[in-house]
Amino acid sequence: MYSYSYLFDVTRIVFEKMGCSSVDAETIADVLLKGELRNLSSHGILRIKDYHTFWKQGRMNARPDIRVVHETPGTAVVDGDLAFGMVSAKKSMELAIVKAGKTGTGWVATRNSNHYGIAGYYAMMALEHDMIGICLTNANPSVAPTFSVERMLGTNPVSFAVPAHKQPPYVADFASTPIARGKVVIAEKKGEKLPLGFIQDKTGQPTDDPSMLKHGGAILPLGSDRLHGSHKGYCLSSIVDILSGVLSGANFGPFVSPLVSYLPAKDRQVGLGTGHFFGAIRIDAFMTTDEFKARMDEWIEIFRSAKPVEGEEKVLIPGDIEREAEERIMKEGITLVPAVRDDLKAVTEELGVDFD
Amino acid sequence: MYSYSYLFDVTRIVFEKMGCSSVDAETIADVLLKGELRNLSSHGILRIKDYHTFWKQGRMNARPDIRVVHETPGTAVVDGDLAFGMVSAKKSMELAIVKAGKTGTGWVATRNSNHYGIAGYYAMMALEHDMIGICLTNANPSVAPTFSVERMLGTNPVSFAVPAHKQPPYVADFASTPIARGKVVIAEKKGEKLPLGFIQDKTGQPTDDPSMLKHGGAILPLGSDRLHGSHKGYCLSSIVDILSGVLSGANFGPFVSPLVSYLPAKDRQVGLGTGHFFGAIRIDAFMTTDEFKARMDEWIEIFRSAKPVEGEEKVLIPGDIEREAEERIMKEGITLVPAVRDDLKAVTEELGVDFD
Repeated sequence: MYSYSYLFDVTRIVFEKMGCSSVDAETIADVLLKGELRNLSSHGILRIKDYHTFWKQGRMNARPDIRVVHETPGTAVVDGDLAFGMVSAKKSMELAIVKAGKTGTGWVATRNSNHYGIAGYYAMMALEHDMIGICLTNANPSVAPTFSVERMLGTNPVSFAVPAHKQPPYVADFASTPIARGKVVIAEKKGEKLPLGFIQDKTGQPTDDPSMLKHGGAILPLGSDRLHGSHKGYCLSSIVDILSGVLSGANFGPFVSPLVSYLPAKDRQVGLGTGHFFGAIRIDAFMTTDEFKARMDEWIEIFRSAKPVEGEEKVLIPGDIEREAEERIMKEGITLVPAVRDDLKAVTEELGVDFD
Repeated sequence: MYSYSYLFDVTRIVFEKMGCSSVDAETIADVLLKGELRNLSSHGILRIKDYHTFWKQGRMNARPDIRVVHETPGTAVVDGDLAFGMVSAKKSMELAIVKAGKTGTGWVATRNSNHYGIAGYYAMMALEHDMIGICLTNANPSVAPTFSVERMLGTNPVSFAVPAHKQPPYVADFASTPIARGKVVIAEKKGEKLPLGFIQDKTGQPTDDPSMLKHGGAILPLGSDRLHGSHKGYCLSSIVDILSGVLSGANFGPFVSPLVSYLPAKDRQVGLGTGHFFGAIRIDAFMTTDEFKARMDEWIEIFRSAKPVEGEEKVLIPGDIEREAEERIMKEGITLVPAVRDDLKAVTEELGVDFD
């Protein structure tokens, strides 16, 4: 069990040792630790080992020259110069917020970036400015479109954050697939079967065997099969890919490079790095902030008080679980599973950072 | 079997007889007939009877004063004055396109509107301007959020249209549920069971009995159950509701009034009418239109040539099926099922319009 501040400092120093500026190292530590606090540890400390490997391979850049390469009053394209994704993503979202301040909404497509931790971090940046925040990213292909055996899309998440007044904010942050890849890996390690509807085998048939993902299989889009609307999950995922990848000038579809270091970069590139898309919508570009927040309070209260199914405590508002985890874990401390702790130990030893 | 132009004229004259201007009557006919052509007849001629009833009840307004009630250079809120939804929706999307022309993107939230036919119609309006089009709407509650027995959300569709160059455009237009309500109704009429994963009964348990929807049941969000990600479908549907309903000043969640005339309007109102949300994104606010369209061509070609599952011909691009239907039905003519033809006959007789 580690305290938040201890792990934050270790993480910060690790990235400083890789050559990041102190500001950038703090940003990276802030996003990764936010992943731990929100109980999304698949996007937390776990990633440091791969980031370190990518950095050694020159696939992530600790001293990026992040530039705006195209711009209008309300839009921009940002080139992340292969930065650690958090650094380019935070700068891009800051730019979207500034633009929204001027024109009502701000939209930034970012290319030449990398894995950026939890999408919700950037969407939530809009909240303190009384804006709705939106954040999308593409990711390396693991998902087959409906009717295909090929992995063409990432788990392409959507995050959407909305401010309220008395109520905590609405924060949706979800992959466009039934499950995360991590759950398939865990089931395989434990020797467990998966429910049907998560993955298909290399011939495109449903399977409950998690090892099939490694052997030419694919994760299914949200909806699981055509009958239950997998073509709608494919639509959602491809919208994320078009905005993040096609519109930014990044790689898209099957060409997005893996974000785990044991897989090689793609041979063919159709753009630069991974792509993200950020949006900020100023509430008062539509109605007074007070009126909107009162309406949003009402929306949240009405949904939270909807009658639950017997055996369930209540209807959840997107963001509830993560916010409760954040409060609890900040108090209780962060547990790292042994493999993640060992990986961090190895990285810190290599970089000469104290960690125990 | 009717020709497109015959049914278009009948529809146009029906709405003129209700008092619509000739321009508005053409708009309504154009959207309803586009629904027929794209083989989405649940959003076509079928609706005329209800529209007529709503008009007689004063719940739809043939002579609306559609006004911009709030505005910035890139955003607006439009009050539809209870117009037939097509009229307020088309004006709203036109405004979003004009705003995008000036500031890079345009975003319009519309309240006090009504059912508007197929969402794809408005998203596709952006294409000829070399813009990406987005169109969302809320709808009367038929969907239970994850863990709830209550109907709190509509089937809240998302439409997203993207221009290409050599390839036909990408046009996604999908409800945030596994199926449309119409399919449940048809199964019930035929005395057939439904697959599990479409609806739940009044206690929130899965059911294959379509009649349960009438008896306190609800449609499930995309993902079907918690295990397969129904909370993600709930997120998507609620994002649509927040942008369309909360941000526009329309009704939201369980307060959206039914769009079928046999159900009464809701007692409690938290806003005005039904809400929509429209977006237009100018391609050249991000990169040159030529470059983007070439990239989009490549995206479409790569996805279309992805290896299909055995027994399937090819991977479909969103919009393929509807576009092929449109070409075919325009040539072959439009078939109305007897009940729809009879309903149209009754309306035309009441209004003194020739139809046979």
